[in-house]
Amino acid sequence: MAKPLILVSNDDGISSKGIRTLIDIMKEIGEVVVVAPDGPQSGMGHAITVGNTLRLEETDIFGDIKAYECSGTPADCVKIAKHFVLKNRIPDLVVSGINHGSNTSISVLYSGTMSAAIEGALEGYPAIGFSLCDYSSDADFSHVKSYIRKIVMNTLEKGLPSGVALNVNIPPKRNENIKGIKICRQANAKWHEDFDQRYDPNGRRYFWMAGNFVNHDKGEDNDEWAIGNNYVSVVPCQYDLTAHHAMAQLNKEWDI
Amino acid sequence: MAKPLILVSNDDGISSKGIRTLIDIMKEIGEVVVVAPDGPQSGMGHAITVGNTLRLEETDIFGDIKAYECSGTPADCVKIAKHFVLKNRIPDLVVSGINHGSNTSISVLYSGTMSAAIEGALEGYPAIGFSLCDYSSDADFSHVKSYIRKIVMNTLEKGLPSGVALNVNIPPKRNENIKGIKICRQANAKWHEDFDQRYDPNGRRYFWMAGNFVNHDKGEDNDEWAIGNNYVSVVPCQYDLTAHHAMAQLNKEWDI
Repeated sequence: MAKPLILVSNDDGISSKGIRTLIDIMKEIGEVVVVAPDGPQSGMGHAITVGNTLRLEETDIFGDIKAYECSGTPADCVKIAKHFVLKNRIPDLVVSGINHGSNTSISVLYSGTMSAAIEGALEGYPAIGFSLCDYSSDADFSHVKSYIRKIVMNTLEKGLPSGVALNVNIPPKRNENIKGIKICRQANAKWHEDFDQRYDPNGRRYFWMAGNFVNHDKGEDNDEWAIGNNYVSVVPCQYDLTAHHAMAQLNKEWDI
Repeated sequence: MAKPLILVSNDDGISSKGIRTLIDIMKEIGEVVVVAPDGPQSGMGHAITVGNTLRLEETDIFGDIKAYECSGTPADCVKIAKHFVLKNRIPDLVVSGINHGSNTSISVLYSGTMSAAIEGALEGYPAIGFSLCDYSSDADFSHVKSYIRKIVMNTLEKGLPSGVALNVNIPPKRNENIKGIKICRQANAKWHEDFDQRYDPNGRRYFWMAGNFVNHDKGEDNDEWAIGNNYVSVVPCQYDLTAHHAMAQLNKEWDI
């Protein structure tokens, strides 16, 4: 089998430790091409750049590996990679991350890391977003390799169901004894925001958003439970948002 | 019954014609509070402002109606509305739009309009995003009122299934004889991007993203079919992205 072609992106920016770790693992598996944001794009959700221009510049920061930094969002990176970098070559895999911080549960909606993966899935490519549940910029990634490798090899060998991207979260290094990999559903949890009100030197009010993550889910089959119990969580995510069960209810109850 | 409390937001910005139209319809139904972006936020998906500050300023552009413009994304607007504007009051409904342009099918992922609605649903509020399938900034909204009113009254009277927000698209005015309202699933269609490469006055390359919408869906139960056949489409959308059907497949096939 020819070496698989692997497109790598992220949302923390091309100079983050997480993407370097991911590239190091991927280059042992296949031919790596990197297209990643030129700066942090955390919390960008599935944003794309529609009313503004995009920049794309080649960089040698990863040595021999073909790499580009892009001024846009993670979803932009995958789109422009397809058109201007890969051109007629079809990637065997799109990977995004490793994110510095958890993307379990509802955080998947806000996650730039996962938007790159979902954008890959939209194009029909097998795609995975990886996150380490440790927010520090110099987080210890030394324990992630075997889990990422196992998930990637399974994906390359067996493919993924159509219309699905994987959301993978990995417990932090400080949690000893990772017990294994669990296929999970998205936990029913949410962010409870708080806004810190301040005044600038001109006396004008501004805010910083802060938030606490609150888990309402009592199940043991979800990603929050998995991380809390030292498993690597794998949630298959779809981009068909239709609540099919709700269609029958609306058709029955509504007077239209 | 007391007048329902209705929170209004959008992604085209507080001065757009679409939000003015929506406010005019809502103020006949309930007490309206507006928190909307201070400028265009199209294509922002479910982005939130995490590494930057937010501004929130009261404005009298809608006369007696309590209104605020916010420097953040549509999702930010709903979050800050909950904390700083509504405080302990619980809205009976969150509406977003009316977007200048279609948000059918996969566009729901990129849509700032729908992210405000989904953010409302996350908070447990009934929530609806409205879009007019006409991209012009001075689009004709004169035909939308009866459809929006009917959808809002059904929602207020019957509620929505838990974890669901509605994605409503309305055919443009130029399509005569709207046939009614259809509950739909999200069409299986996608954007085929194109990047227009240009050079700035300093000789540096930049890009504009453009795209063509291509419908791969042959069904007659989806939102693209509905709009193409002059129906108002209503897609119930969920924020649990888990592809439940894929969990069994991965558990069976994967060697973990």
